Amino acid sequence: MSDENQSAREKIAEIRETIDEIDCQLVRLLNKRAKSTLAIRKLKPQVQWGLYDPKREEEIFAHIAQCNEGPLFADDLRDIFDTVLRVSKEMRV
Amino acid sequence: MSDENQSAREKIAEIRETIDEIDCQLVRLLNKRAKSTLAIRKLKPQVQWGLYDPKREEEIFAHIAQCNEGPLFADDLRDIFDTVLRVSKEMRV
Repeated sequence: MSDENQSAREKIAEIRETIDEIDCQLVRLLNKRAKSTLAIRKLKPQVQWGLYDPKREEEIFAHIAQCNEGPLFADDLRDIFDTVLRVSKEMRV
Repeated sequence: MSDENQSAREKIAEIRETIDEIDCQLVRLLNKRAKSTLAIRKLKPQVQWGLYDPKREEEIFAHIAQCNEGPLFADDLRDIFDTVLRVSKEMRV
């Protein structure tokens, strides 16, 4: 294996460790978000709101686009948050 | 509107602010992750690896399940990270 090849492999391994750390932080935040969603779900019957709120979903998409500094595009984030919101709605708790 | 109803509405508004803050943190982390993914993508030709690496994807799923403390289930996180990985592969940069 050439030195250059070896050095690229080491760099990839290093960046993958960084990604693993980021992923654990993402998992923590997603769980924190899920807890907040469950707290709202409990309060909704008191205010006679349905579980699905399309206006609030549009607010969420507008908000994430606003705090996005890239390199991901707003559409990429929308895809990811679409899944986050779907999973939230289907949460079995 | 009853006092109880008013108080539930205020609580929901407060929790939604917390969710908005979490979402901005998620956006920051997802972008940090995307930058790391792009850095690896640049290095891959030097080590003659393809862009798609199913073994690494399984490592990622195992890792997120390991650092998960709930309330989300491993399957919920797998759904979300499936989208994150798909978006990463399709990133137009």
